[in-house]
Amino acid sequence: MDTRPVGVFDSGLGGLTILKTLSQALPKEKLIYFGDTVNVPYGSKSKAAVTRFALDIARFLEKQKVKLIVVACNTASALALAELQKKISVPVIGVILPGAMKAAQCTRNGKVAVIATEATVQSKAYPRALKRLDKRIHTYQRACPVFVPLIEEGWIHKKAGEQIVADYLHGVQQSKADTVILGCTHYPVIKKKIAACLGKEVKLVDSAQVLAEEVKTRLAQTDQLNPSGRGSMKIYASDAPARFKRLAKNILGRELRRVYLKKLN
Amino acid sequence: MDTRPVGVFDSGLGGLTILKTLSQALPKEKLIYFGDTVNVPYGSKSKAAVTRFALDIARFLEKQKVKLIVVACNTASALALAELQKKISVPVIGVILPGAMKAAQCTRNGKVAVIATEATVQSKAYPRALKRLDKRIHTYQRACPVFVPLIEEGWIHKKAGEQIVADYLHGVQQSKADTVILGCTHYPVIKKKIAACLGKEVKLVDSAQVLAEEVKTRLAQTDQLNPSGRGSMKIYASDAPARFKRLAKNILGRELRRVYLKKLN
Repeated sequence: MDTRPVGVFDSGLGGLTILKTLSQALPKEKLIYFGDTVNVPYGSKSKAAVTRFALDIARFLEKQKVKLIVVACNTASALALAELQKKISVPVIGVILPGAMKAAQCTRNGKVAVIATEATVQSKAYPRALKRLDKRIHTYQRACPVFVPLIEEGWIHKKAGEQIVADYLHGVQQSKADTVILGCTHYPVIKKKIAACLGKEVKLVDSAQVLAEEVKTRLAQTDQLNPSGRGSMKIYASDAPARFKRLAKNILGRELRRVYLKKLN
Repeated sequence: MDTRPVGVFDSGLGGLTILKTLSQALPKEKLIYFGDTVNVPYGSKSKAAVTRFALDIARFLEKQKVKLIVVACNTASALALAELQKKISVPVIGVILPGAMKAAQCTRNGKVAVIATEATVQSKAYPRALKRLDKRIHTYQRACPVFVPLIEEGWIHKKAGEQIVADYLHGVQQSKADTVILGCTHYPVIKKKIAACLGKEVKLVDSAQVLAEEVKTRLAQTDQLNPSGRGSMKIYASDAPARFKRLAKNILGRELRRVYLKKLN
């Protein structure tokens, strides 16, 4: 038994979709979430920059004495996971491998599409992970850089948002993929819109669920679950916590009680 | 006569619209541009964060021995100008006052609208500047947070972009303003779209031209022009210079020769 908290971080709000699933799967754990709102977005920045941001956050979480860190951000997982695992003293789990494993299980025709940020697409993290799992899988990738601002501002639900979704997904439809990885933690928010556009024969993979199971398994294997805990959530943001609190509603569908400001560096 | 360069900075690409106008108005000056691509965007961040970013850049430009600094970013002008003018040894000129002066001259019905980032709107920098110039002016403000990503990605020219423009400008139309300040240096890129939406009776104020004149006047007054110079432009970005170079085309309409990477801190 290990009563230490689990750390979770993202460039901003998107990782809250992961936090929500984690808190449902592990209702007795203390969860600490860090949203890097001073450096958001990561998806258009370099590997060097994203790695520096991620290391600063992971070191902060280490100081909070977490027992495990979840990188609830595809870009940071794609660009910085190896570096984090090298330099951080507790286990660090990213979202890429769980998502790729689920997709490899789901696909029947061996065609998988990934929609993600520019940086995640360029890193080729998903195609590489999928190839390692099954050499026959063919991966199509599409960067959708406008999705994140549209989701954060709540615009995606308007008619223009629908058109942008349709436009971005055109190539995904052409790729004939039967499985599409939502390769950015913001995208589950518009899962229904994406599903409506692609049709129900296409399976959407949202790594939150499989990631939460992975975290649970890892903690159980090392006897680090906290079965008698009361469960809690503490949220930090590196800038503008009031704005974070307000926009979190667009992601979580409910109000956060409090967001703490924590500047790094 | 003063052969030192003029420094110009923005959170990213938007300030290139100012740089372009400056280079036309001052073809003999050496211009140094800094795009803060590691911290972009500023418009959703706090005053404390934006002030820190702006000071770091201004200090870098100071070290490049500039004779004057142009804050080619409305958010940084709105949030950090006073602090820059206090702490930096050379004159620092922002975009807010020139834009407000031009708008105050243009309006006939005393109703001015400002479209800008969230942070610029919240700072109330434009309404305050306009009130100081003419107490009778009534200002309507509208934050358009989705414009910047749509412009940078070249999406604004698609049909969905047009709808988003129309949606954001609905309140501007209702305000009956006869003068609209483009309160973000990205927006001149979509000036035609905005004009088409608002109709030709509405005057659009783009601070680039009036700012360039202000810079020229200031340098002339202190005998700091460089009349026998050959004119040049050196571009720095704090992250991902190749991406900056690629996207700069969406702003400038032409290719930049080289973008230097310069990390601050």
